[in-house]
Amino acid sequence: MDIEKYVKRRAEAVNSALPRFVRGLAGADPRLAEAMAYPLAAGGKRLRPVLLGAAYEIFGGKAGDVLPAACALEMVHTYSLVHDDLPAMDDDDLRRGRPTTHKVYGEALGILAGDALLTDAFTVLLSSRYPARVKPAGLAAAARVLASRAGARGMVSGQAADLGAEGFLRGGVTPARRRKGLELLAYIHLHKTADLITAAVEMGAALAGAPEKDFKALSSFGRDIGLCFQVADDILDVVGDKKKLGKSGSDARNAKLTFASLLGVDGARCKAEALMRRALPRLAGVRGAAGPKAALAGIAEFVYRRDN
Amino acid sequence: MDIEKYVKRRAEAVNSALPRFVRGLAGADPRLAEAMAYPLAAGGKRLRPVLLGAAYEIFGGKAGDVLPAACALEMVHTYSLVHDDLPAMDDDDLRRGRPTTHKVYGEALGILAGDALLTDAFTVLLSSRYPARVKPAGLAAAARVLASRAGARGMVSGQAADLGAEGFLRGGVTPARRRKGLELLAYIHLHKTADLITAAVEMGAALAGAPEKDFKALSSFGRDIGLCFQVADDILDVVGDKKKLGKSGSDARNAKLTFASLLGVDGARCKAEALMRRALPRLAGVRGAAGPKAALAGIAEFVYRRDN
Repeated sequence: MDIEKYVKRRAEAVNSALPRFVRGLAGADPRLAEAMAYPLAAGGKRLRPVLLGAAYEIFGGKAGDVLPAACALEMVHTYSLVHDDLPAMDDDDLRRGRPTTHKVYGEALGILAGDALLTDAFTVLLSSRYPARVKPAGLAAAARVLASRAGARGMVSGQAADLGAEGFLRGGVTPARRRKGLELLAYIHLHKTADLITAAVEMGAALAGAPEKDFKALSSFGRDIGLCFQVADDILDVVGDKKKLGKSGSDARNAKLTFASLLGVDGARCKAEALMRRALPRLAGVRGAAGPKAALAGIAEFVYRRDN
Repeated sequence: MDIEKYVKRRAEAVNSALPRFVRGLAGADPRLAEAMAYPLAAGGKRLRPVLLGAAYEIFGGKAGDVLPAACALEMVHTYSLVHDDLPAMDDDDLRRGRPTTHKVYGEALGILAGDALLTDAFTVLLSSRYPARVKPAGLAAAARVLASRAGARGMVSGQAADLGAEGFLRGGVTPARRRKGLELLAYIHLHKTADLITAAVEMGAALAGAPEKDFKALSSFGRDIGLCFQVADDILDVVGDKKKLGKSGSDARNAKLTFASLLGVDGARCKAEALMRRALPRLAGVRGAAGPKAALAGIAEFVYRRDN
């Protein structure tokens, strides 16, 4: 399986569905609709919706069945980027090689576009039609997963802790600060990044009505590759090609905690590999189609090796 | 029926339930939990949750059955106030007589607390236990109503249009500008305020599994009293007791469009009364318990007469 091709092909289905959903929501305010569509059109790997579709397929359905749910998840991810980039937050001017939403539409509309993407993720998730294979209870469970992984126990608490950790490394790294920093960082990465990647596979499993045991195994798999993804991101912020990444490396500028700053690039690489290796066996016990399981395993390695 | 006592008693149940729900969500970030609890604790009339409970009771249940849904709605309302007050939006320092959330916790945590209140409204709505009378399909319908009334087709588009209308009246009111202004204002009020009040009665009806015809009648009732509420608010911004209102009258400062500025206070009063009188007959065709219907009618008059 050529995993890069797989991810790309799956991402294209998401890319063509997303604008349709947002057009359906546009309401009568054209500037708001534009400010919502702009960050969604920036592309990106669409890792979360691709994971959602693959996890769903393990249990016999087709990813196309749950495309609205996959797009809803990407809308939540996109809102989080739009708000993260705001002047009061990370204050980033560039995202995926383009000016950030608030740079183009102003700060007020940046806030509102994020609010609308988050809210209407639930509109898209809950108002769309699904084949009979997706039961109402599965849909409600998927919405519950999305809300709780994205909320105060999940993604938002990671972002809040991340802001609190800004400048943590000003004054240098002592052994005591490294220990404290690694602890804090584990919390931040778990919530800020891994929670929504975990939500992807959990939502896929929930929509498929997967057995509890398989839901849990996929959840652990999601957490591991979510953490791996973020450690890889930390490394890329140091050694990555800024042009390929399309962002400006604000981590170093803000003296932020990252695994690369605490463990060095080699230490961080070792950590990422360990996470990827821990993730793979989680899939072994999940009963279902081999193809989608192989795709998830491929994505785990892809996440570890990625260069953008 | 003493409607003020009724609203107050019902609001107390909401006031005591809200902190419990937020404690349950707190996660490990105490500052974030505080910044979420702070604006919820400011009180307010709790009009939306009270309406939700009354609409639900028409169809035979007890408001206590749907308290989590009522609290979820109030969380969405509260998030909208927190984000509205941000410096990039209305830039208000005072809300209900207390410093606004971003004044106390900083702008970043103001944004995040709003994000979390919005997201976790869905967690509370979808993760809580309800009596068997509330069916899964009703719960999913209520979540759909909440998302679509609060999103880009609803509340957020009203807020975006409101920002666009700022300073509309700088340079004075000509007949042509009055006409244009009234049109714009009708759009803003419908979405910014009436949509979430409409959601209240719609959610109550959805949770009760009300017939389509009654759902629609309640929806129209909600729209009318929602608009009436906002016209009354416009009047209070001019003639109200600032101390009772607990806010600083930013409308006049920002040369904002209001019904009072376009029609004068008497014209606006006439408009509010017409809306209230249009709302009342909507209830006549709804089949169900008389007490809750009388409560809704009482709330319509209460909304019209309110002085804070």
